[in-house]
Amino acid sequence: MEKHSSKILDDAVDAFASLPGIGRKTALRLALHCIYQDPSVLNNFARSVSKLGTELKFCRKCHHVSDADICHICTDQKRDHNTICIVESIRDVMAIEDTGHFRGLYHVLGGIISPIDGIGPDDLNIETLIDRCKKDKIDEVIMGISPTIDGETTIYYLTRCLNDAGVHKISILARGVAFGGELEYADEMTLGRSIRARIPYQLNE
Amino acid sequence: MEKHSSKILDDAVDAFASLPGIGRKTALRLALHCIYQDPSVLNNFARSVSKLGTELKFCRKCHHVSDADICHICTDQKRDHNTICIVESIRDVMAIEDTGHFRGLYHVLGGIISPIDGIGPDDLNIETLIDRCKKDKIDEVIMGISPTIDGETTIYYLTRCLNDAGVHKISILARGVAFGGELEYADEMTLGRSIRARIPYQLNE
Repeated sequence: MEKHSSKILDDAVDAFASLPGIGRKTALRLALHCIYQDPSVLNNFARSVSKLGTELKFCRKCHHVSDADICHICTDQKRDHNTICIVESIRDVMAIEDTGHFRGLYHVLGGIISPIDGIGPDDLNIETLIDRCKKDKIDEVIMGISPTIDGETTIYYLTRCLNDAGVHKISILARGVAFGGELEYADEMTLGRSIRARIPYQLNE
Repeated sequence: MEKHSSKILDDAVDAFASLPGIGRKTALRLALHCIYQDPSVLNNFARSVSKLGTELKFCRKCHHVSDADICHICTDQKRDHNTICIVESIRDVMAIEDTGHFRGLYHVLGGIISPIDGIGPDDLNIETLIDRCKKDKIDEVIMGISPTIDGETTIYYLTRCLNDAGVHKISILARGVAFGGELEYADEMTLGRSIRARIPYQLNE
């Protein structure tokens, strides 16, 4: 696509195209949409995006996104402050919060140990996790980490650190066939392990 | 999706989700991408979008986007200033410019006459078109307008206006089967008309 009449338009297309998953055609479509918007609407848009860089913070306790130094989950006195769920990313906090099935606190690692990607324990928020476990009274740590090879490595590493820090009740997410999923589409490993880890079933009469 | 820990993040998600074709999940993905960017990158992004509202202009002659009062096409003395191609939108100017097959000027209508959508001639940039044709020496007007029902209506209306203004050489885009297209996928009307409007074929020996 050749450059257009306007450097201002080109710059905006470049800006949109720098976002992940937005190609140049979509970027042009978004920019052309914007030129017919009210300038105040565009300014609000621009300010919202800018603030992500200048005003958004990460919680000093759990590293989740926050508008204050400590996030609204860590400050919520109605939550269980003795249980921590360790997750890879902010996205995972949101996913678990959306389920409504967890009322404890989180700890965002900011990644998982991945030798191939050159990510080691020092690149993750592990030190602050150990500090929390030593300082606060933590009864249980849940590993809310994907059951991939890197995930299992991370779980193994964290468990050793946590045991050393005096935390011994550690759990992982239940694994098995997905609810509502068709058996024929479940992968072999999941299906095989689900048979071995089968659950006794009883009628509630 | 429930609201998140941060009003700043929520505002950015809302902002991205207000763009056409961007749903809330994609908006969240874009916002989360942004929070790991350098604040200066985000400020540049924000400024680029803002400028679309505050600094981008429309050419006073042809209504194409422009950084100046008159666009770079209208000021280009190497172009043919006696031929105007009328198009519906800025997007169409770009599409025709990309072909490299037109060296005249443009006139962006800003829509087409559409009784169903309540768009009449007064909503379009027709007055400025007639003014141009009266003031400048226009030899030919090309209707670069889609061959839809509304498009044909617009072409008919414009032709009458242009004839009244003294422009009599008016042409429409060639119609027929698309280059590289498979005949079996051409619609009936296009194929039927292409047979009736067939072109003599001769070997250049």
